[in-house]
Amino acid sequence: MKFCSNCGSANITQSIPEGDNRLRFVCSSCEEIFYHNPKIVVGCIAEWQDKILMCKRAIEPRYGKWTLPAGFMENEETVHAAAARETQEEATAEVSNLSLYTMYNLPHISQVYVMFRADLVAGKARPGIESLEVALMDETEIPWDDLAFPVIRESLLRYFEDKRQGNKFKLHYGDIQKLTNSEFDIKHY
Amino acid sequence: MKFCSNCGSANITQSIPEGDNRLRFVCSSCEEIFYHNPKIVVGCIAEWQDKILMCKRAIEPRYGKWTLPAGFMENEETVHAAAARETQEEATAEVSNLSLYTMYNLPHISQVYVMFRADLVAGKARPGIESLEVALMDETEIPWDDLAFPVIRESLLRYFEDKRQGNKFKLHYGDIQKLTNSEFDIKHY
Repeated sequence: MKFCSNCGSANITQSIPEGDNRLRFVCSSCEEIFYHNPKIVVGCIAEWQDKILMCKRAIEPRYGKWTLPAGFMENEETVHAAAARETQEEATAEVSNLSLYTMYNLPHISQVYVMFRADLVAGKARPGIESLEVALMDETEIPWDDLAFPVIRESLLRYFEDKRQGNKFKLHYGDIQKLTNSEFDIKHY
Repeated sequence: MKFCSNCGSANITQSIPEGDNRLRFVCSSCEEIFYHNPKIVVGCIAEWQDKILMCKRAIEPRYGKWTLPAGFMENEETVHAAAARETQEEATAEVSNLSLYTMYNLPHISQVYVMFRADLVAGKARPGIESLEVALMDETEIPWDDLAFPVIRESLLRYFEDKRQGNKFKLHYGDIQKLTNSEFDIKHY
């Protein structure tokens, strides 16, 4: 943040406002305080018969890698409406019967991932503008070495594990913390 | 948003960027796009023996009304660490054994509320800077007509209902939509 979006001044400093306890961007001209908060990423594990819907990314980051349909929640949405919208946008796919399935904290990038299980209506999907390809896959078909993000890998691991336990799907809540570029600490509560 | 926080220009317009499908604040001088996303509010139902911790607000909005300790999640936090921090800030109270309990969408104000059940360590609490008073209350002591927000009321109703069912606490996920100033539509999934 280089300029104040309220008054246009370049007098932006980082300081702790009165009554607060952390650094904020503050305008010393008009005294506006700017808060930056974590973002919510939402998506679906969309099921059709014994398979789930996967998307191959047509955008950076992780162009060409496989992921679940997911993206940033928008203002004035609900979490599940956002998950359904992202599935529509990335895989031109309609989902129904959404149920809350995972919530993962990614504090190193200030994101919270929320995934739903859902029914893929009529098993229909085709690539949206952000996908190169979409596919219905079972556990053996998942490209485990070509997944876009650790949180996607973890969500898929939990899903197929629950499925093997006789479809005993329970809510998974945990943290995925980046240790190095290739190592992550994953913790469930 | 009146000025561009990247280049200081006043040429801020609302338009739909290429490849996007909704209005964003866009700077026509430097072409920066500004995204605004929902915020996460987190808090605790902190239990001590047969009571829970309530706080009387010392800040607007809803000054003087009762609430659960809760507030905005900050960057680089986890949801449960934020809930514990808010409980510390508002009620000078330590919590342990947090478990995810409710998630409510408040799309009319672009917020998602996440509440945890937790143990109030040693039953100790005293007002923080944002509270006039703190108190341990059972169901009959809750000031039902003096609660700060509908989402707090709903969380408490679900909590005492689960408690009456023999402490069968399950995750509650739903929407709280504002209809008029005093009416809200509440839906669970």
